[in-house]
Amino acid sequence: MLVAVDAGGSSTRAVVLDATGSCLGLGTAGSGNPLSSGPEAVALALGDTLRQAVGSAGVPPASIASVVIAMAGSGAGVESGDPARAGILNGLSAAGLDAPFIVESDLLAMFHTGSCALDGHGLVAGTGSAAIRVRGGRVEAVADGSGWLLGDAGSGYWIGHHVVRAVVADLDGRGPSTALTPLVLDQLGIDSVGGSRRSSLLRLMEIVYEMRPVRLARFAPAAFAVAGDEAATAIVAGAARALAHTLSAVIDDRIDGPLVLGGSVLLHQASIAAAVEASFRSHGGAGEVVRVADGIAGAAVLALRHSGVTVDPAMFARIGESLAGLRERSATGR
Amino acid sequence: MLVAVDAGGSSTRAVVLDATGSCLGLGTAGSGNPLSSGPEAVALALGDTLRQAVGSAGVPPASIASVVIAMAGSGAGVESGDPARAGILNGLSAAGLDAPFIVESDLLAMFHTGSCALDGHGLVAGTGSAAIRVRGGRVEAVADGSGWLLGDAGSGYWIGHHVVRAVVADLDGRGPSTALTPLVLDQLGIDSVGGSRRSSLLRLMEIVYEMRPVRLARFAPAAFAVAGDEAATAIVAGAARALAHTLSAVIDDRIDGPLVLGGSVLLHQASIAAAVEASFRSHGGAGEVVRVADGIAGAAVLALRHSGVTVDPAMFARIGESLAGLRERSATGR
Repeated sequence: MLVAVDAGGSSTRAVVLDATGSCLGLGTAGSGNPLSSGPEAVALALGDTLRQAVGSAGVPPASIASVVIAMAGSGAGVESGDPARAGILNGLSAAGLDAPFIVESDLLAMFHTGSCALDGHGLVAGTGSAAIRVRGGRVEAVADGSGWLLGDAGSGYWIGHHVVRAVVADLDGRGPSTALTPLVLDQLGIDSVGGSRRSSLLRLMEIVYEMRPVRLARFAPAAFAVAGDEAATAIVAGAARALAHTLSAVIDDRIDGPLVLGGSVLLHQASIAAAVEASFRSHGGAGEVVRVADGIAGAAVLALRHSGVTVDPAMFARIGESLAGLRERSATGR
Repeated sequence: MLVAVDAGGSSTRAVVLDATGSCLGLGTAGSGNPLSSGPEAVALALGDTLRQAVGSAGVPPASIASVVIAMAGSGAGVESGDPARAGILNGLSAAGLDAPFIVESDLLAMFHTGSCALDGHGLVAGTGSAAIRVRGGRVEAVADGSGWLLGDAGSGYWIGHHVVRAVVADLDGRGPSTALTPLVLDQLGIDSVGGSRRSSLLRLMEIVYEMRPVRLARFAPAAFAVAGDEAATAIVAGAARALAHTLSAVIDDRIDGPLVLGGSVLLHQASIAAAVEASFRSHGGAGEVVRVADGIAGAAVLALRHSGVTVDPAMFARIGESLAGLRERSATGR
């Protein structure tokens, strides 16, 4: 028995599977990303989701041979002494697991949710954004993924940040009047009718500077809610351009594998996904384009591969089907 | 006797002057900006600088009739209960002053360091950036000044942030190769020769995410140090464009008063100041363009005006000359 975990910024998923790729138990919990939530939150989310997965699989914890955890920021590995390592160990022991664990790239898990091919490209745009080139089942190159302050161009954070900046520029006269302004002021609980534009602006600044900057991602949906608005249209087009550019930095046109798109921005915004696909084609990308919702199936692929199993298309399909069955079971309360 | 204070993000200055505009004593200390340093630092810097100013003027503290303090973020006034207010009261009492105080806009003090005219425009680009329109001696309109996260376009922070982002994009292949990269890596103590580009990038991210974001302003000078570099040239041109745009949002071409430029970016970067001046002219700005180093003379103008004195050009000249004398005296140790 193997366990695979997808520890993301907004949720953590764990699955118990056997060596044929049949998924037997699923668990879900809150954020398990050590960068955004800290090691204590990792331990809690991991313990919780592992207990659920092992419990619903109905297998004894001692039967778990190994655990693969796909986690953001793991490109450089989780060193001993790393606080993330302590969080993982605490999470495993909270679920009664004593198996060895391996940390894998969350980007690679996202890629393998879309494909069991050993070569291809991946692009994720959720709260953050990054592109990878995959060769021989490993990440060969990464572009961006440098976080809210230094990169993540075109991500949910990037879009939300640009939305709020457009509202600030509207309120102080530097930017065009935009329908984003009443939307964002309303979202912040600021009375935009009663007060002056200046007082709305000062109140907005007060609230936003109290927030953790990465929380600006919550304003991203506003950009998609005001179709035809000049400022919003420019932001969405800018995000598509940035994501296409990030992907282009890793494309090797000798690789004919798939392009896997993940994260809420690419999953839900067809216009951005289409712009990215067009750029992929223009850079010589030939493979199919697949959109995925999370990295749990890919984490299962990586768990199998780490235990020496070759994941062929039939096994890949079994992973997907058995996961879908577990999801349905959990949605209907068994 | 009056006291005027210019409380800035990197230093605080105080001057004691009489009702004719003669400056009698000067004091300087560290940051007195409540937004960047907190109320305790305000109290310390203010107490320190006031003690120096009153001491070197050789007047009894009880002879000070009122204090005017020019301070960032004071557009909305310093309310009772505001932590900045507590810092100011503690600073005054640490210097033995029991006089009433008035808080004024630091942008208006910067403007009046360049001119005693009651109408005109001001643009400051230091760590932050903002433009004002002055009419009847009051700030009539403000553009930007919305801080590192939401605005400050073209400021030292903005330039430094773009410098580091250009380095990140260079290191991960999204951006052009730039001479900024070895410069910034060296400034961060990262060995760019021994390690891989990926390891340099990961180390850079680690260091920068530990810093307070506003500290990215320290990388601004790099943009001016690599003449001819593609990425650096684009950043400097972008800053000039952003500052010209911010100014254009407040220009009223019926005002024929001066344009006062303040802050290190405009003071030291002639190409940016020239671009801003060209934009001022193209928007109908007719007044002379003056560059100033700080807001202390303007704070003195505001202190005089608050005590009912009309500051005419002769008095304005006396403020400047007596301040220069005090500066020379303090530089030569009397």
